[in-house]
Amino acid sequence: MLIDKEYLSQPQNESCLQLIRVPFMEYQTLSVDTKNLRLISRLQASLVWIDEELAWDTSVYPFDEVVLPVSKIWTPELHVTNGIITNMKHSSHDLLLSSNGTVRHTVTINAEIGCEVNMFNYPFAADSCPVAIQAWTAEGCGTELLLGDLKNVGNSHGDWQTEHAFYARIINRNDRNYIMVQLRIKYLNPFITLFLPSILIVLADAISFALPLGGGERNCFKVTLVLSFTMFLIILNNEIPGDGHCSPIIRTHFCICLVFLVFSMLVSMVLTGIATEGSILSLCCTKRSAPKRTANEEEKADEETKADISVVPLDTSEEHTRMLRKVVSFLEDLGAQQLKREGYQKIAKRIDEIFFWLYLIFGSIYFLAMTYVMVHYTCPVNHFDFWY
Amino acid sequence: MLIDKEYLSQPQNESCLQLIRVPFMEYQTLSVDTKNLRLISRLQASLVWIDEELAWDTSVYPFDEVVLPVSKIWTPELHVTNGIITNMKHSSHDLLLSSNGTVRHTVTINAEIGCEVNMFNYPFAADSCPVAIQAWTAEGCGTELLLGDLKNVGNSHGDWQTEHAFYARIINRNDRNYIMVQLRIKYLNPFITLFLPSILIVLADAISFALPLGGGERNCFKVTLVLSFTMFLIILNNEIPGDGHCSPIIRTHFCICLVFLVFSMLVSMVLTGIATEGSILSLCCTKRSAPKRTANEEEKADEETKADISVVPLDTSEEHTRMLRKVVSFLEDLGAQQLKREGYQKIAKRIDEIFFWLYLIFGSIYFLAMTYVMVHYTCPVNHFDFWY
Amino acid sequence: MLIDKEYLSQPQNESCLQLIRVPFMEYQTLSVDTKNLRLISRLQASLVWIDEELAWDTSVYPFDEVVLPVSKIWTPELHVTNGIITNMKHSSHDLLLSSNGTVRHTVTINAEIGCEVNMFNYPFAADSCPVAIQAWTAEGCGTELLLGDLKNVGNSHGDWQTEHAFYARIINRNDRNYIMVQLRIKYLNPFITLFLPSILIVLADAISFALPLGGGERNCFKVTLVLSFTMFLIILNNEIPGDGHCSPIIRTHFCICLVFLVFSMLVSMVLTGIATEGSILSLCCTKRSAPKRTANEEEKADEETKADISVVPLDTSEEHTRMLRKVVSFLEDLGAQQLKREGYQKIAKRIDEIFFWLYLIFGSIYFLAMTYVMVHYTCPVNHFDFWY
Amino acid sequence: MLIDKEYLSQPQNESCLQLIRVPFMEYQTLSVDTKNLRLISRLQASLVWIDEELAWDTSVYPFDEVVLPVSKIWTPELHVTNGIITNMKHSSHDLLLSSNGTVRHTVTINAEIGCEVNMFNYPFAADSCPVAIQAWTAEGCGTELLLGDLKNVGNSHGDWQTEHAFYARIINRNDRNYIMVQLRIKYLNPFITLFLPSILIVLADAISFALPLGGGERNCFKVTLVLSFTMFLIILNNEIPGDGHCSPIIRTHFCICLVFLVFSMLVSMVLTGIATEGSILSLCCTKRSAPKRTANEEEKADEETKADISVVPLDTSEEHTRMLRKVVSFLEDLGAQQLKREGYQKIAKRIDEIFFWLYLIFGSIYFLAMTYVMVHYTCPVNHFDFWY
Amino acid sequence: MLIDKEYLSQPQNESCLQLIRVPFMEYQTLSVDTKNLRLISRLQASLVWIDEELAWDTSVYPFDEVVLPVSKIWTPELHVTNGIITNMKHSSHDLLLSSNGTVRHTVTINAEIGCEVNMFNYPFAADSCPVAIQAWTAEGCGTELLLGDLKNVGNSHGDWQTEHAFYARIINRNDRNYIMVQLRIKYLNPFITLFLPSILIVLADAISFALPLGGGERNCFKVTLVLSFTMFLIILNNEIPGDGHCSPIIRTHFCICLVFLVFSMLVSMVLTGIATEGSILSLCCTKRSAPKRTANEEEKADEETKADISVVPLDTSEEHTRMLRKVVSFLEDLGAQQLKREGYQKIAKRIDEIFFWLYLIFGSIYFLAMTYVMVHYTCPVNHFDFWY
Repeated sequence: MLIDKEYLSQPQNESCLQLIRVPFMEYQTLSVDTKNLRLISRLQASLVWIDEELAWDTSVYPFDEVVLPVSKIWTPELHVTNGIITNMKHSSHDLLLSSNGTVRHTVTINAEIGCEVNMFNYPFAADSCPVAIQAWTAEGCGTELLLGDLKNVGNSHGDWQTEHAFYARIINRNDRNYIMVQLRIKYLNPFITLFLPSILIVLADAISFALPLGGGERNCFKVTLVLSFTMFLIILNNEIPGDGHCSPIIRTHFCICLVFLVFSMLVSMVLTGIATEGSILSLCCTKRSAPKRTANEEEKADEETKADISVVPLDTSEEHTRMLRKVVSFLEDLGAQQLKREGYQKIAKRIDEIFFWLYLIFGSIYFLAMTYVMVHYTCPVNHFDFWY
Repeated sequence: MLIDKEYLSQPQNESCLQLIRVPFMEYQTLSVDTKNLRLISRLQASLVWIDEELAWDTSVYPFDEVVLPVSKIWTPELHVTNGIITNMKHSSHDLLLSSNGTVRHTVTINAEIGCEVNMFNYPFAADSCPVAIQAWTAEGCGTELLLGDLKNVGNSHGDWQTEHAFYARIINRNDRNYIMVQLRIKYLNPFITLFLPSILIVLADAISFALPLGGGERNCFKVTLVLSFTMFLIILNNEIPGDGHCSPIIRTHFCICLVFLVFSMLVSMVLTGIATEGSILSLCCTKRSAPKRTANEEEKADEETKADISVVPLDTSEEHTRMLRKVVSFLEDLGAQQLKREGYQKIAKRIDEIFFWLYLIFGSIYFLAMTYVMVHYTCPVNHFDFWY
Repeated sequence: MLIDKEYLSQPQNESCLQLIRVPFMEYQTLSVDTKNLRLISRLQASLVWIDEELAWDTSVYPFDEVVLPVSKIWTPELHVTNGIITNMKHSSHDLLLSSNGTVRHTVTINAEIGCEVNMFNYPFAADSCPVAIQAWTAEGCGTELLLGDLKNVGNSHGDWQTEHAFYARIINRNDRNYIMVQLRIKYLNPFITLFLPSILIVLADAISFALPLGGGERNCFKVTLVLSFTMFLIILNNEIPGDGHCSPIIRTHFCICLVFLVFSMLVSMVLTGIATEGSILSLCCTKRSAPKRTANEEEKADEETKADISVVPLDTSEEHTRMLRKVVSFLEDLGAQQLKREGYQKIAKRIDEIFFWLYLIFGSIYFLAMTYVMVHYTCPVNHFDFWY
Repeated sequence: MLIDKEYLSQPQNESCLQLIRVPFMEYQTLSVDTKNLRLISRLQASLVWIDEELAWDTSVYPFDEVVLPVSKIWTPELHVTNGIITNMKHSSHDLLLSSNGTVRHTVTINAEIGCEVNMFNYPFAADSCPVAIQAWTAEGCGTELLLGDLKNVGNSHGDWQTEHAFYARIINRNDRNYIMVQLRIKYLNPFITLFLPSILIVLADAISFALPLGGGERNCFKVTLVLSFTMFLIILNNEIPGDGHCSPIIRTHFCICLVFLVFSMLVSMVLTGIATEGSILSLCCTKRSAPKRTANEEEKADEETKADISVVPLDTSEEHTRMLRKVVSFLEDLGAQQLKREGYQKIAKRIDEIFFWLYLIFGSIYFLAMTYVMVHYTCPVNHFDFWY
Repeated sequence: MLIDKEYLSQPQNESCLQLIRVPFMEYQTLSVDTKNLRLISRLQASLVWIDEELAWDTSVYPFDEVVLPVSKIWTPELHVTNGIITNMKHSSHDLLLSSNGTVRHTVTINAEIGCEVNMFNYPFAADSCPVAIQAWTAEGCGTELLLGDLKNVGNSHGDWQTEHAFYARIINRNDRNYIMVQLRIKYLNPFITLFLPSILIVLADAISFALPLGGGERNCFKVTLVLSFTMFLIILNNEIPGDGHCSPIIRTHFCICLVFLVFSMLVSMVLTGIATEGSILSLCCTKRSAPKRTANEEEKADEETKADISVVPLDTSEEHTRMLRKVVSFLEDLGAQQLKREGYQKIAKRIDEIFFWLYLIFGSIYFLAMTYVMVHYTCPVNHFDFWY
């Protein structure tokens, strides 16, 4: 009994095409590699086929079924055609053989499938990936699959949710079966770690116009925001795939936001310069202000010399008056400086307000446009480019 | 003697069902992957079964027991049904065979089991995971297990503690045995790295209302807190699993805290703006204040022109008086400005206090509610969805 | 000659117990996984045993020694009983066989051993780990080891130093041999990256009481320190194992330090609030101060109205005096405000000093106590719980 | 039928050179390891060869084609000569054999190829890598390849884009075939994460000259920029390969930028010191200023003593005048101090402006030169040094 | 022909020592693991040996050379004695056999070699590592190597440069051959990421003495520097190996620099305290100053009461005078306070200058000493401790 099975360890081939039935298959998405655009799946398929050379006469050998070690007979192979790494293993070392030659076996396939998931609308991305299930054929010879039921299990772990998984077939091609896996990203996690902080940063940047220009607070605040935003940009780039057709629009969005933030920071810095020293203004209108200042100084100098001259012949009251005048001129100087500074500050504040409104208007327009593109535009991806 | 054992290297099958006794099994939790919700375990099982074809007559061959290489005879397989990756290895290359055909062997199974651990109450999470132990069967043929003792070893390493591990069985199903593993997270580590800093940050944010609005300190302080909190949010999201049914409530909690912090930062920024410049106020009541200010300026201008006019015909004393008046008016201006500023500050401070009390009240209510939910709500998880 | 060796590829078993001599063994610690408490070792053992069936008559076959491929004869196995992952490989594909049946072979074992290293005194931790070396036995049958010399090589790489490695044996048990590996952490690396910065941070926090309360410096400084300390806490937690019996005391120490730092930061913030505005004080004694302030204001208002009334009938000198009085009252107001502020500052400073001394005293006591515990307390660990 | 194929499991060798046709090959770049300069590829080749010993007479055995297990006959090997790690696997366990001895088979090669990609112009790098495809030959014996079509699939995933892949051959050498793979980096990702932030940082550093020297803002701002830039330098160094011929020019560029930033920060710090205290100036010209200051103090002291002396015999008016004089002298002191401070500030500001213009001019010249080198210089790399 | 080769699949042993010629070997350093002190290498050796039992008579079988599958005959092994992980693979499945029994084969060895690279002068480290190449021998039996040419390829990838690789032999020992690999670190990468920033940080710390003590800038600046330096210390410790003989001197250097920085920060903090409040000074000389202050206050109070008393009987002029006196006393108070503050500042500034010079002198001495040690001291390492 054992011996007669031993020598049959060879593949079967009559009419050069062997029919393999797959009455039941379990599909499980283990994970989705968002960075390299790969889908790591696990398939467990029960296979049934008839190997007539393994049949026996139950009158001679009075058993209906025997258990055979899997290494002693031929077993069919399932291929995941678009798998980068495919690993088919026997689920058990034994298989069941009926007296009429029907063999029942179960195999497990771990496959890493290259699937260019459409990440255009990244934190809300959803797409379908085909997992091509084929048997080995070459020039009419080989094996043919007859697919039965498909069950999608364990669909809720990880960052991606497998919504459906069903069999499909390329039209007019009998041998091109695939499992269509509908994936949807669980948006809560990237939303919380990437989107929410970035929105809060932009919001904080807009509100930071309420901070006074002078005290050094606003620039410090804005540079912190810019650096934090850069950090989020780096985190984002580590999670989403490289450049290409249908690359996530959120990266462009983050870039534009970064430029917005930096521009607003630079404007704020320049306005701080104007508010405290009028440095930029004085660079512009150096012609006009320079003589005026000189005149002013001359006048002051003149006044002082006059005062000096008039010091000598003085009685108490005039001395008194002269001194008071000094006090007054000191305070007036102070007042004039303050007025000048207030003037600068007023100019800076006016520009600041104008810039704030421009920022608000353009920012709002941009956000609306971006939201529109994100929601309505669908980037078309051909998932079947491995079959040509 | 050697030759007669050689040819028996085939599986045994009479009545198509082989009974395998597992008198002793060692269970060890190696680690728990909190991110992907997997339980990595190690099982060491001693197996005893009777292979009648391997029996011999001790009168012919005078040994009671022989040692055989494991590769020359058939050995049964244990399956971990819900294991994503299962790896059964023979503990040794040799096994012991008694003259009556009893075979004693030991196998080691390294299994990575997908177990949707209930992480709802995250830093205090505890749950039970089944490790389904089955033998290979197909349509009535195959092997049957008879489980004996179970020992849980090495239960204290790692972030999770294995409290109990015991055999259980699905009711009315003889072949569905499993090891129920009761896990409890060691809360000290996540408590210290995530919880404690986040509580301290929120506390520091509440206390930071004691800082003065004006000096630029408070906003700087609050933005630092917000960014640190974001960092903790990112660390948290890297450790806990994605979104889904029974996802940790602590993530929602962190999000709400972040919004709290950002809102308090924005309010603080706006109040700083009001305190220093009254900028927001003046935007609101620009109608009323604008003419007033103009009037004020006109008045001042008027006064100045009047003063200018009255300059000419003056004796010393009046000159004296005029100058003193200038000093006084300067100081009065200063005082008026300061009064206006103090007015702004008083308004800002009042709003600040109101906001502080609102923050305290709503914060306390929120914390109580969140604590209640965390302690009392239990999220139900069905761990047996792999058996359908 | 070749053929007669070929058929001997079977294990040896007479009297059911085979003696294996291990004349020489090399032990090497590759690394110690501090996080998962595992010891990764490499053992190279030379084995000598007698396989009488492989002996030959030198008169028939005139060679003293032959070289045989290792796959053609039976070889014994060494087990590392407490190894999580054990991997025994033949050092070479050939072995040496003498005419009397003596076989000489060398095997290499890479083992990952679960050893609950006592990390209580973490940066100065030292412990002994047993590496249980056993041969395969089952019910009296199997192999028995006779251990010879042990050499510890390559003991200075990595973060842990292997001080000694020697054979030992459980008392009264012949078959329970183990290698006792004495490990000592190289404390310089964790001392520099964890301990030194944390001490410097606490020191800087103590010295930061020298900074003035008012200028916004101190709080900024302290929040930076707290956040840095949190960072070190996270780094620490990534390197040391989870909670449990004998978990490192340094974690508790870091926690207490963090609470110290945060408390000192909060106190500093409240004192800043008191120093600049007396906000907290005014909240406490709002009853008393409120009417006083109103009175003060009324008085001032009164004075002003009086002044206004008295404006009309005035000669130059009185005008003069009135104006001077205004100046004086302005300055007096300024002085009064400053006095009030100085009063607040004095109170804040006094509390600050008291708190500083409390901080210093309790801090010193705590440090002494912690040092005492760290140096003197030894946490007992049973390393032999895998043998029961 | 089965038996006659069984014993043929041996390689074929007539005339010692076997011709293998490769009618179709699929090339796929899986990834490019920029750090270690490796190209990870996947090749799928269909092989056709004639094994005359496997031919049969269709009159005896009436099948045109049979399917054979791949382990039972000899199959040729493809070598990737410059592959560090090469892994050839059979695509299926079965192959097709025609009656005339023609064998059709498919193999998959995963190869990690060491290719010194020219990274000189890093974020815009593009280069060609040869993947040497050879069959095994030794001293005239072995196999010879006849290459057919090549298809480049999956060329858009990852950070590098495979633009072309075509067969080429070393001139005058029949057996040195290779696939020339033209790679181009997708510059968007490194541009956004490395280039854009670094440009924005340098820009912000240039604009930060608009900030006032005094208020402590500028230095704080600049040190933040320097530290952020250091962070980017570290990120950059983690992504690009080590030093050597043709190492990326961008690293040198970042270094020079860092030195620029630090120099500008140091200058700004020194100027702040000058502006507030004139500390550096007073160190330089300590000789001249020291006596002057003393003189000034003496004068003041003199004046005070004089005032003290003249206190005693005074009538009201003189008392009056004396007091006014005190006020005036106090204010004059204040003014003098302010003048001195303004003088310092003016000097600091002048130096600041000069430095700003120097910074701008040299910075611009440097940027132009660097851009020119980056765009025009091509670093020559010999990719064929593995064939010598 | 096939059958007569088939049964020869056994090792050769006449005179118990087989000579293996290695006419050509390719050595390639794949990488150097600086953290664990391992050298990952790849060797490709062509082996030539004579197996007389495989020879045939060309008159019987008319071929000069045949190609044989490698699995059917015995092949020698090469050992890398000091390799932690060694992996020898056949370069091809076929080998070439001449009619006189000469076998030509090629093997590839991937080895991870434990080599205690001398890292004392870390960023400029250079050392030689032996790669021991031995064949299997046991008690006079086994194989013997005859080494030919050695070629060092691919020597420029990665962080380490392989300068030379040549054969060497332990004196007086025929069987202890090794490849001496001369390695040199590419210093540019660690220099830029570790050395340059640390030098710039220390430089910035020295220059930061130019910042004024008072405005809160300097301490903020210094704490930022200290934290950045700590970050670099952590990065450094992640890259260089643990403590031990010949551990990098740069770690000690970084530690000392850190202590320098912290000390300078603490001094700066204390001086800030002195400059603004004289807090530390007043703690020291609290005895003397306390009564003085009280006296001062009493005096003031006295003056005020006197003023109060003298208020009542007053004519306009005296009223006038009294008021002026108040103004003057107010200003004098202000001046006195400022004088006191200036006094404190002067003391703080003096100490600051002294400390700056001390810092500069000791820093320079330390740097010179450290540079001398780094350049001149060579730490001796015995690389041959695996041969004892």
